[in-house]
Amino acid sequence: MDRFSVTYRILADDDADATARAEAIALEDTVEIPRDVVPSGYIEDTVLGKVQDITANGDGVWTAKIGYHIDTVGRELPQLLNVILGNASILRGVKAIDLTPNDDLRSRFPGPRFGAAGLRELTGRTAGGYVCPVIKPQGSSPETLARLCYLTAVAGADIIKEDHGLANQDAAPFKDRIKACAAAVGQANQERADQGDTSRALYFANIGGHGDQVCDMAYYAKEAGAEGILVIPGLFGFDAINRLARDADLNLPIMAHPSHLGPYVLSPEHGYGHGMMLGQLMRLAGTDISVFPNYGGRFGFSQDECTQIVEACRAPMGMGPAILPSPGGGMSIERLPDMVQHYGDDCVYLLGGSLLRYGKKIGDAIRDMRGGLEGAKTQVSRPGFS
Amino acid sequence: MDRFSVTYRILADDDADATARAEAIALEDTVEIPRDVVPSGYIEDTVLGKVQDITANGDGVWTAKIGYHIDTVGRELPQLLNVILGNASILRGVKAIDLTPNDDLRSRFPGPRFGAAGLRELTGRTAGGYVCPVIKPQGSSPETLARLCYLTAVAGADIIKEDHGLANQDAAPFKDRIKACAAAVGQANQERADQGDTSRALYFANIGGHGDQVCDMAYYAKEAGAEGILVIPGLFGFDAINRLARDADLNLPIMAHPSHLGPYVLSPEHGYGHGMMLGQLMRLAGTDISVFPNYGGRFGFSQDECTQIVEACRAPMGMGPAILPSPGGGMSIERLPDMVQHYGDDCVYLLGGSLLRYGKKIGDAIRDMRGGLEGAKTQVSRPGFS
Repeated sequence: MDRFSVTYRILADDDADATARAEAIALEDTVEIPRDVVPSGYIEDTVLGKVQDITANGDGVWTAKIGYHIDTVGRELPQLLNVILGNASILRGVKAIDLTPNDDLRSRFPGPRFGAAGLRELTGRTAGGYVCPVIKPQGSSPETLARLCYLTAVAGADIIKEDHGLANQDAAPFKDRIKACAAAVGQANQERADQGDTSRALYFANIGGHGDQVCDMAYYAKEAGAEGILVIPGLFGFDAINRLARDADLNLPIMAHPSHLGPYVLSPEHGYGHGMMLGQLMRLAGTDISVFPNYGGRFGFSQDECTQIVEACRAPMGMGPAILPSPGGGMSIERLPDMVQHYGDDCVYLLGGSLLRYGKKIGDAIRDMRGGLEGAKTQVSRPGFS
Repeated sequence: MDRFSVTYRILADDDADATARAEAIALEDTVEIPRDVVPSGYIEDTVLGKVQDITANGDGVWTAKIGYHIDTVGRELPQLLNVILGNASILRGVKAIDLTPNDDLRSRFPGPRFGAAGLRELTGRTAGGYVCPVIKPQGSSPETLARLCYLTAVAGADIIKEDHGLANQDAAPFKDRIKACAAAVGQANQERADQGDTSRALYFANIGGHGDQVCDMAYYAKEAGAEGILVIPGLFGFDAINRLARDADLNLPIMAHPSHLGPYVLSPEHGYGHGMMLGQLMRLAGTDISVFPNYGGRFGFSQDECTQIVEACRAPMGMGPAILPSPGGGMSIERLPDMVQHYGDDCVYLLGGSLLRYGKKIGDAIRDMRGGLEGAKTQVSRPGFS
C-alpha cells in the first residue's frame, strides 16, 4: 500500500453530496486549494488525498475512506494529525473513526517502547490486573504526597500514578514533588524486595510545566528515580508523547491522561471515534498505558465506547505492540468484579479519590483491590463456583 | 478579586441538579476527589474551586460561574487549561463560554506582545484592513513558494502567511523553505522601500516540526528574516504560543491557526464558546492575530459566532492589548465589501486557494484585494454615495 488511510463518518444529503464531501476532505487536509488549481504531477498524484471508498450507512450517514501519502506528513507527529483531521476537524459532520496504517506510517511512527508485554517485565507482575492508586489532591505538600506514595507502594501497588492536576504549583513544585515521591516509592520497593517480593511499584511522574520542557522534566524525573512518565496530550500535544517514546536514552514507559480531550470524542458528529483517539492515536504516539473514563462512572462513556478503546489498544494490526487500557474516573472496589470481566488482566485499574476514604489505612485499599482483582478473576475463570 | 472565574453552560434537570453539576466541576478541575474527603484548611479554602453564581436560562440550560485561585494554576499555561476545562471537558453537557480574569491571572499571563496597535507599527500600514495572501500548496518546492512570496509581497501585501500544512516535508524542508521565503519577502520589501512605500510585508513562517523545537524553529525563522510566526495550538498546544509571546529576545508577532481545534467549538454542549477559544484563550496565550473560518465560507461558523470571536479579540477588559481577528476559509474578493462592513479595519483579510487562479498575475489579486478593502471602506463610511 502506498498510502495509509483514514475512515471518516460523514453526514451528507445523498450519494453525490457524500462524494463531494469526501473529495473536499481530501483537498482540505492536504493541498487546501480548489480542485481546479491543483498542479498536475507530483502534487496531484502524490500529495493530494485520494478518496478510496464511500459507503452509505443509512440515516444520512456515510463512511469515506481517504488515502494519504507519507510525503504529506514528513516525520513529525503534529503534521500527521494535520493530515488526518486538521482543517477537516472544523468541517461540520466529519468525524475520523479509523486509521489503517501502511508500512511508511509504521516505519515513521513505530509506536510504544514497552507496551503490555514490557509492563509485565518492568513491574514483575507476571499475571493479573495492575493495581494503580492515584496520588492526590493538589495543594498537598511534597511530604504528604510522598507519604501516600510510600503507603500504597509498600502495600503492593504496581503503578503509582500522580494526579494529572499535580503540575508545578507553589504548594508542591514539580522538582520537589518528584524527588520526594520517587524516593518514597524507592524505599517501599526496597522493603518489598527485602521481603522477597519479586514485583515492584513503578512511580509515574506527571509532567507539570511548559510544553517545550517536557523532555527535560522527564529526564529530571528519571534521575530522581521515577520509572514512568504521565503526559496529558490534550495540553502538551500528542507529539510530546512521541518525543518521549522515541527517546532511547530516556527509555521510560508512558501513561497518557485524557484531560482536555473530551470534546474530541463526545460528539457523534465531530472529532475522533473513542477507539481511534484513545486507542489508535495513543498507541501510534507511543503511549504504553491509555487512561480513559470507565463506563458507569461520573463521565458519560458507554460500555461500547470503552470496548472500542480496549480493542484499539490491543488490536494485532495496530501500530506497534499492544498497550494497556486504564479505566478510571470514579471507580470503586465494589465495581472490580464487573470491570475484570470486561477488561481482563492486561489492564491498569485506577483508584483515585475514594482511596482517601481509607485515611491512614490506605494500604488496606491496595490490598482490597488486589484481593478484588484476584477474587474476580477466580469468579470469571470458574463461573461454576461463583 | 482573589479568584478568576470561568462561566460554563451546563445542561441539567432542575436547579438542584444544576447546582450539583457546578459543584462537581469545581471539584473535578481542581482537587478531583469526593467533596467529603477534601482536607480542611488551605486545600478546601483556596485550592478547591468555588461556585459563585448559577443562573437558569430555560430549556434545560443553566450558566454557572466558578472561581479558581491562581494557586491551582501556578505559572504555566497547560495547567491553566487543566483548571479551566481539563477533566470537565469529558463531562457531558459542560461548555466553557467565558473567562473573567483577575489581577493574578493578568500578571501571570499578560497576553500578546504586539496586538492590533503593534501590528500597525510593524507593517507601517497606518490605516485600513490588512491584505494577507496564504502561500501554498504543500508539495511545492521552496523556490516555487518563495516566488509566490515575492510576487504577493512586492504587489503590496501586508502579511505573507504560509499555509498551515507547510510543515517539514521532503518537498520543502522547514529550514530550506523559510530561508528562501524570507529572502524573497526581504527583496520585495527592499523594492517597495526603494519606491517610497512606507509599509512593508511581514513574512509569517509556519512552525513545522516537533513540539519541543518550536522555540528553536522560531529563532531560526527570525534569523532567516521572518518577521512573524504562525503556530497551530491544536497541534502544539496553547503553551507553545505563550512561550513565544513571552520571549523578549524573539520579539516576533504570532498568528494562530485553528487547525485541529474544530471539535472544541462545534458542539453547543461541549468544549469552548467560539469567543472564548478563538478570542479569549488566543489572546491570553499571546496571539497577535487569530485566524478563524469566516461565516458563509466552506466551514460552518455562523455570523454570530464570528462576531463573538471578534468581540473577544477586541474587548477592552480582555487579557492584554486587543488583537487582530483574521477570517479566512474560502474567502473571495467578491465578498470583501460585506466582510469589511462586518470586521472593519483592524482585521487581517486572508486570501488562500482562490489566489492561485490568478496564475502568474497573482500580484493583481493583491491589488484587487487592496482596492476591494478601500472601496468597501468608502462605501461603508459614506453610505450616501454607495
